[in-house]
Amino acid sequence: MWFASDNSGPAAPEVIEAVAAANAGHAASYGADAATARVTARIREVFEAPEAAVYLVATGTAANALALACLCPPWATVFCHPEAHVAQDECGATGFYAGGATLTPLEGAHGRIAPEGLQAALAATGRSVHGVQKGALSLTNATEAGTVYTPAQVAELAGIAREAGVPVHMDGARFANAVARLGCSPAELSWKAGVEVLSLGGTKNGCLGVEALVLFDPARAWELELRRKRAGHLFSKHRFLAAQMEAYLEGDLWLDLADAANARARELSEAIAALPDAALVHPTEANSVFAAWPRRRHWAMRAAGVHYYLWPDGQSLEGAEDEPVAARLVCNWATTQAEVAQFVGLLRGPERAVAREVGP
Amino acid sequence: MWFASDNSGPAAPEVIEAVAAANAGHAASYGADAATARVTARIREVFEAPEAAVYLVATGTAANALALACLCPPWATVFCHPEAHVAQDECGATGFYAGGATLTPLEGAHGRIAPEGLQAALAATGRSVHGVQKGALSLTNATEAGTVYTPAQVAELAGIAREAGVPVHMDGARFANAVARLGCSPAELSWKAGVEVLSLGGTKNGCLGVEALVLFDPARAWELELRRKRAGHLFSKHRFLAAQMEAYLEGDLWLDLADAANARARELSEAIAALPDAALVHPTEANSVFAAWPRRRHWAMRAAGVHYYLWPDGQSLEGAEDEPVAARLVCNWATTQAEVAQFVGLLRGPERAVAREVGP
Amino acid sequence: MWFASDNSGPAAPEVIEAVAAANAGHAASYGADAATARVTARIREVFEAPEAAVYLVATGTAANALALACLCPPWATVFCHPEAHVAQDECGATGFYAGGATLTPLEGAHGRIAPEGLQAALAATGRSVHGVQKGALSLTNATEAGTVYTPAQVAELAGIAREAGVPVHMDGARFANAVARLGCSPAELSWKAGVEVLSLGGTKNGCLGVEALVLFDPARAWELELRRKRAGHLFSKHRFLAAQMEAYLEGDLWLDLADAANARARELSEAIAALPDAALVHPTEANSVFAAWPRRRHWAMRAAGVHYYLWPDGQSLEGAEDEPVAARLVCNWATTQAEVAQFVGLLRGPERAVAREVGP
Amino acid sequence: MWFASDNSGPAAPEVIEAVAAANAGHAASYGADAATARVTARIREVFEAPEAAVYLVATGTAANALALACLCPPWATVFCHPEAHVAQDECGATGFYAGGATLTPLEGAHGRIAPEGLQAALAATGRSVHGVQKGALSLTNATEAGTVYTPAQVAELAGIAREAGVPVHMDGARFANAVARLGCSPAELSWKAGVEVLSLGGTKNGCLGVEALVLFDPARAWELELRRKRAGHLFSKHRFLAAQMEAYLEGDLWLDLADAANARARELSEAIAALPDAALVHPTEANSVFAAWPRRRHWAMRAAGVHYYLWPDGQSLEGAEDEPVAARLVCNWATTQAEVAQFVGLLRGPERAVAREVGP
Repeated sequence: MWFASDNSGPAAPEVIEAVAAANAGHAASYGADAATARVTARIREVFEAPEAAVYLVATGTAANALALACLCPPWATVFCHPEAHVAQDECGATGFYAGGATLTPLEGAHGRIAPEGLQAALAATGRSVHGVQKGALSLTNATEAGTVYTPAQVAELAGIAREAGVPVHMDGARFANAVARLGCSPAELSWKAGVEVLSLGGTKNGCLGVEALVLFDPARAWELELRRKRAGHLFSKHRFLAAQMEAYLEGDLWLDLADAANARARELSEAIAALPDAALVHPTEANSVFAAWPRRRHWAMRAAGVHYYLWPDGQSLEGAEDEPVAARLVCNWATTQAEVAQFVGLLRGPERAVAREVGP
Repeated sequence: MWFASDNSGPAAPEVIEAVAAANAGHAASYGADAATARVTARIREVFEAPEAAVYLVATGTAANALALACLCPPWATVFCHPEAHVAQDECGATGFYAGGATLTPLEGAHGRIAPEGLQAALAATGRSVHGVQKGALSLTNATEAGTVYTPAQVAELAGIAREAGVPVHMDGARFANAVARLGCSPAELSWKAGVEVLSLGGTKNGCLGVEALVLFDPARAWELELRRKRAGHLFSKHRFLAAQMEAYLEGDLWLDLADAANARARELSEAIAALPDAALVHPTEANSVFAAWPRRRHWAMRAAGVHYYLWPDGQSLEGAEDEPVAARLVCNWATTQAEVAQFVGLLRGPERAVAREVGP
Repeated sequence: MWFASDNSGPAAPEVIEAVAAANAGHAASYGADAATARVTARIREVFEAPEAAVYLVATGTAANALALACLCPPWATVFCHPEAHVAQDECGATGFYAGGATLTPLEGAHGRIAPEGLQAALAATGRSVHGVQKGALSLTNATEAGTVYTPAQVAELAGIAREAGVPVHMDGARFANAVARLGCSPAELSWKAGVEVLSLGGTKNGCLGVEALVLFDPARAWELELRRKRAGHLFSKHRFLAAQMEAYLEGDLWLDLADAANARARELSEAIAALPDAALVHPTEANSVFAAWPRRRHWAMRAAGVHYYLWPDGQSLEGAEDEPVAARLVCNWATTQAEVAQFVGLLRGPERAVAREVGP
Repeated sequence: MWFASDNSGPAAPEVIEAVAAANAGHAASYGADAATARVTARIREVFEAPEAAVYLVATGTAANALALACLCPPWATVFCHPEAHVAQDECGATGFYAGGATLTPLEGAHGRIAPEGLQAALAATGRSVHGVQKGALSLTNATEAGTVYTPAQVAELAGIAREAGVPVHMDGARFANAVARLGCSPAELSWKAGVEVLSLGGTKNGCLGVEALVLFDPARAWELELRRKRAGHLFSKHRFLAAQMEAYLEGDLWLDLADAANARARELSEAIAALPDAALVHPTEANSVFAAWPRRRHWAMRAAGVHYYLWPDGQSLEGAEDEPVAARLVCNWATTQAEVAQFVGLLRGPERAVAREVGP
């Protein structure tokens, strides 16, 4: 059973088939192929944004760092949640891509930045030449806490940012999960709410490795192309990125995949909430479940070979067996109801007498 | 007919099949999967280098820039041929990755750096704190002129560099073509000749998008891992990179593919050399042919829909019809003898009366 | 009356005279002059560090950023107090000089990092390739809160850092004030307590513009020279930097100047503490006083033309006249007892009826 | 006798006196003092540029690198003469400040870029996303070969650049020498000829260490302020930079100093040209003389303790005694006619029998 991350899941069959089908004969390289043109058109259609510039890269870190480098000058700071991927999981990519720009973490419950905190941080930043300046706001949706920002919540934060002249980036590695949850349109959750640049994830939700950068304002499109190239993120056999994204957006595959993952997380969440000695840490609004249970249950799960992470990192595996530890469980499109049931059974069930097992 | 670049060709069927086969169930992400471990072992075996550190990325620019950033500090310079990919085709990636490091172009016939030029440049560089310092030597093999360095030629240049305390990188985007041509072992053309870090290409020679960074001295392995991560080049679904490289190195597929491309280039080259009004610009030693023919023949070829580049870029399409223009033709594993014959027929044949066509 | 900053004070007459005296005839440039050699020897003597490498620059930001760039790789983080100059007042210089490195602020009362916080941050940092790595510890002494670290306190923090393989930098823009306060030797407060690189301030304490970088371990001396040069901080007419530093360290001028500033601050502090409606915010251990008094007193002082900053920045000038506001008062070597008395008189005295005045 | 560099000369007495006079009482720091305001006004007046933004720094490398970072994005290239200070003497500062931007050296006789070479380079640069883009043109005036560009020559090159959308920077470390030579107005040699940003040198021509950055178009003024700050080039006791520049521009001191240096160089040049076995390498148009004479004469001069550099660097001190070696002699405002006469006497005079001396 794998609940470690959505990126440990497989690609959707439709995506794999599209890649194989793209391998026919010769094609112009570096994005001049027909499939890339079709992807651009499709994303403009999906987002009701006929002017948007669209670029494909293969990783979420690349998408985020390229976007922020276009929005935030070297002497400025990106406002983000302390748990944001750009803050925790990209080994300083923003600073590297944006020439030494910094991050300013803004707290907020359940992975969402609090409007008043953003307000205060904007007021306190860039008051003179001595400190770093206001650069960009980066929102993660769905958040790293498995929750979502509604269009209204995005609009509120983006409005505060715009007021201060600060552009808005959205890390949408799990944007599909947010849209699927909210039932809104992609446009409502992005540019209509004030987002300038979106990192639209594919990898975690059924692709092999593809993300789209969507610049709703194409003014910085050429800059982004140059940044992508010199960062080594312009693929020569670009058709294989395009094929993934095309299949992903064909029909509503991307939303169907996200729906499946969200549904499994909801089932998991409800079952956990019903257990007498477990509790949710965050509300479950997308495809991740954050919950706590006694340490002895963790030992039992690990002994049974279940893959997931204690969250936050660094919790002690040793200690009282009744003390709660917190964990993250991530579902992906391929997670089955049987796996969820099996997991819940294990979690509920009489703990086997297990040797205390240590390890990540 | 496509002779524009080897990256306009398809992937080998074995590679596509391996990617599809890798899509089974869950796997640990970020390179902790079994396939990645097998690839590392296989590359150590192929290169007779049991200590080598091996990392996969998806583009040649990423491979080169990451390698050079590990070898060349920000205040130093990379010595390379003026036609090198790092100098011409990476939009300043070396400077970006290596914190502002510069390039020092060193001339040499047919794409190969002249030893005496390297000697002189090393002597002239880093004489005081005022100028940039000696950083690294980057050799491209097969070269951008379609020629190869022999192991002895690499060893001579690497020896001069080592003498000056300068490490050696090899851009091996077409390393397979060089090995296939020379009949030497991969080790003889790399670490045995003094190469510290090799960018081992897969993309141009039958993969979808994968290159291996081989650090024969693993001392900087952790630095490279961190650089790769913060540059956004660490793939979460890493198995799909690994699957490509594993299939590519299975048996001698990589060399068989290169052999096929080299053979087509040789046939093309011999046929062109035999034409009364065409001439080779460089000897054909790998999978690219550099040749010149009258401008009117170029018009004819373009009219017939043949894809190739005039080389160097910027030659006028207008002008006397008998004046020679120079072109680059690149074969890949999928180029057929029929295509070569058709091309040669067109080139030889009575030019059809064509409207002069302008455009890239 | 100027209590805005020690850098609004004049240079000491001895320093000005030394600069004028240095202007005789020709001298070798870029630090090859005799005065620079004498300064190096003198600093080695003052610090009992015969192997130390010494470099002069003209600003504290340059000193700190160059030092940290040598200690902290681009993918790592500098641990510092949230009020540190590197965090608040250098517009991201660390990120710029260190290729995108980040800062990790560590709280602690009265400007001093708490050992347990450092311990925890080191344990939490660099656990995998995904996050930034442990880079360096930067301590400010005297601190930005007008307090000092004792040698034992430095040694405790440096010991924790060394344990984790993390080198220690000291921002000693006010190092003289700390030494003067503590009565310890310069060595005891630096390398003997575990400091690898010291930014030894001159500018705030009676020079025109000079700081010394002291590398107790000279292993990275050449790297620092190159970084200084390419940052434009290697002065051609270097004798004018050297002359300042030489006069500053002649006899115990540097400590005498600091003693004078510290004494004025102490007098100011004691007088403020004795007022019924004022209170110290931090203990006064060096040349800065942090205190709070009713807003109406602030209006009175401003009306009288006294220069100082409300601290922290951003406090409202409007509001209840009895509500306390907090301020920073900085003394320098040239602050007189008369000015202190005059200030205290104003602060104590019956507030004149003043129009509420707004402005920085 | 010192002809090594103009930066080995002393500061003008007026400048030293101004620095001493500036040391009265307290002053606002970081450029908010009255002297800085007067300097800005004076430079606007001198350059007939009432809108210009003016910033002071202490070194020429800082001035050039800051200017070019504002004009040239990270993915672009600065066109400059191969002998330019930015190319030879700043240890890669442009790449550091401009985030990895590169330099493209353009040949031209006697230190001046040839218009046709600029034309060709602009046409060849930035043709696609694969190569670096057109960034800025940097002209050095007076040049590193001791010659000058006339206003017409600047205008021709700047016109070609403007045509291609490329802004123009002038490295005016010896701008005073060029103006003094040409008898034109400062405006005619800068913005009227198409220069956007000027590094106006003070250090080499009689100051201790000060250069002015003059942005004729103030649009990027704030960016420059931020870049200066985070590079550590914003002086806290800014009045001491301002005092130098104010004295330097008072009356026509700056031009008088340059006139004196130019005159000495002219005398030296004429005397050398009249020698039977010496020859000028470049015409002498400013304060530097480039000439060649037999190696045995070099030995004699070095034995007599004359300071100058062989130029270019790296010429062998050993070899046939009649073989010519080339040297650079730089005069400064303090060089005397007696020193020139003594030098010429030594050069002309019967060589004493000297032991061949080796060394820099």
